Amino acid sequence: MRIAEIAPPWYPVPPPGYGGVELVVAQLADGLTQRGHDVTLFASGGSRSTAQVVSPMLDPPDPALVGNEWLDALHAVSAYLAIQDDSFDLVHDHSGIAGPALGSLLRGHPPVVHTLHGPWNTLARSYYSVLAAHIHLVAISETQRKANPDVPYAGLVHNGIDVDAYPFVVPKDDFLVYIGRANPDKGPAFAIEVARRARRPLAMVVKKSEPFERAYWDEIVAPMLHDEVEVYEGVSHECKVDLLGRAQAMLFPIQWPEPFGLVMIEAMACGTPVVTCPVGAAVEVVEEGVTGFLRETVDGLTEAIGAAATCSPYACRARVEAHFSASAMVANYEHVFADVVGGAAAVESVSEFPLRR
Amino acid sequence: MRIAEIAPPWYPVPPPGYGGVELVVAQLADGLTQRGHDVTLFASGGSRSTAQVVSPMLDPPDPALVGNEWLDALHAVSAYLAIQDDSFDLVHDHSGIAGPALGSLLRGHPPVVHTLHGPWNTLARSYYSVLAAHIHLVAISETQRKANPDVPYAGLVHNGIDVDAYPFVVPKDDFLVYIGRANPDKGPAFAIEVARRARRPLAMVVKKSEPFERAYWDEIVAPMLHDEVEVYEGVSHECKVDLLGRAQAMLFPIQWPEPFGLVMIEAMACGTPVVTCPVGAAVEVVEEGVTGFLRETVDGLTEAIGAAATCSPYACRARVEAHFSASAMVANYEHVFADVVGGAAAVESVSEFPLRR
Repeated sequence: MRIAEIAPPWYPVPPPGYGGVELVVAQLADGLTQRGHDVTLFASGGSRSTAQVVSPMLDPPDPALVGNEWLDALHAVSAYLAIQDDSFDLVHDHSGIAGPALGSLLRGHPPVVHTLHGPWNTLARSYYSVLAAHIHLVAISETQRKANPDVPYAGLVHNGIDVDAYPFVVPKDDFLVYIGRANPDKGPAFAIEVARRARRPLAMVVKKSEPFERAYWDEIVAPMLHDEVEVYEGVSHECKVDLLGRAQAMLFPIQWPEPFGLVMIEAMACGTPVVTCPVGAAVEVVEEGVTGFLRETVDGLTEAIGAAATCSPYACRARVEAHFSASAMVANYEHVFADVVGGAAAVESVSEFPLRR
Repeated sequence: MRIAEIAPPWYPVPPPGYGGVELVVAQLADGLTQRGHDVTLFASGGSRSTAQVVSPMLDPPDPALVGNEWLDALHAVSAYLAIQDDSFDLVHDHSGIAGPALGSLLRGHPPVVHTLHGPWNTLARSYYSVLAAHIHLVAISETQRKANPDVPYAGLVHNGIDVDAYPFVVPKDDFLVYIGRANPDKGPAFAIEVARRARRPLAMVVKKSEPFERAYWDEIVAPMLHDEVEVYEGVSHECKVDLLGRAQAMLFPIQWPEPFGLVMIEAMACGTPVVTCPVGAAVEVVEEGVTGFLRETVDGLTEAIGAAATCSPYACRARVEAHFSASAMVANYEHVFADVVGGAAAVESVSEFPLRR
């Protein structure tokens, strides 16, 4: 199948540091190519893939311009103008706002599969209610799909990672690890407070390059830091997985209904359980009492840290291999693509996932 | 000719209060219909026109969402999906960021004329350099066109107003009038300072509905207010033209290279000269010493206020009738449309305007 994969333009594929969507697209472009498809990847300059790479923007934008609507549209329209010229059997769009609108104008020639990487807020609901008749939407979690039953879905495909790129580490050290943007949504302040109460050292891998992130960090998080908190920024994959592997647990006090949460499966792949909140897709990524704990309060999270050592590192790794591997993701997308090209639009039965009770 | 006019979605057409682009589109939709064209106007709910009105968004958005990129794309994609279904000879797009990208995908079937209502910043330059090969760009001032000679223009068409809707008033009162958003770009603080030095009362018609505007007003402008400054917000057309007509001069200390500046021609239509800065299109809208003055400093502006009474109200009105009337604008767009549909893409010779020396 001749497939155009459209990444967002904010970071190279794969991302040198932060960039969950770009990490997923990297796995897909390589995985689909390996499965014999003819893949063209539209992604920011500096991207590397076994697929053919086309970069409308020669460099990733300045961090202050991440999410900028002009660049969002510039990248997307450049990709879709090229797609109109060339011949593809299918477009797989991961881009932001302009991309799926441009895909809608293709009217199925070729069909456009758009993976929903964001949450269902009021604006997104209105927007996709118009687009849903013209493109094929894929949810990345059951939580996300259930949050908006008013649009049809061509399938549900969980994000996946290359499990081999995550070293399995036993035994564990006693410190905790947090990974996330400096944003109240991700709960970095709660992470510091829970670690303090649990009397554990905390390694924080943070991103604070955007103006709001920097302001939030400086005003709210930085005053809470102390000797037992170590902060890492812009770390390599090797440094990240080293911390993930050695940590007793990932402390991920998520405060918003995140549609997936890639760092949770990265931790579990390293054999590290996840202590998080029952919000968003965390409830289907983490198996309660087996690969981590879901708690709503600071007290509950603190208590769960004490119990984290009872989770089997092997069970954590096994859960990722079974449900959240890159190969599972690639195979599931192949099913969706086959259905879409075969004309079975908006099929609901694809890639069902055995949910946690 | 079957023409689709796409307005921005932020205010109804015509706008009950603020909304320069919407005012221009109102004149065009009515004027082209009157000239016998079959016009469909895509505009926000509440719009009224002799053209057929289609409103993808049933209500204009909350003021806090003006400019929101989701709504920009929602409005534009709804319009372009309808345009794909129907039959138009030409699309005339005034919308924001997503609109011209969607227009580019039509690839000339029908051709898309996009009027540039914004300034040439770095992001706009990059964006339109990609789109310019696929849509027909129209500049709204020579200043704007010269600011970016790197894209082709299908023409230059100055904005125009329905001169009959602006009462011509003589003699004048002694107060000054300012109209503009609460934004440093528009110079409201300079207006207050110049009026104070010139010892003239000042009527300020302001828009401060968006969060930044409100903050700027509260922090910077409000502390400068005194008894001789009267502030108007959300005024009707009647109230606005009453102030414009009676004022000795419009004080418009513009601080950014605005590509046009509709309020200047509104003032002149009422026979009121304009005291402004030699920035952006002001230099081609105002005829120095005849319909107003262009000065760079607070001292210069203050001095010019004293000389404003030497400008003939009749000359002000005559300049608008000759160059900035709705009928002139409609006729100029008709020429552009005929050239575009006739295949003369990116013609530079349309609607040349006798520039001020």
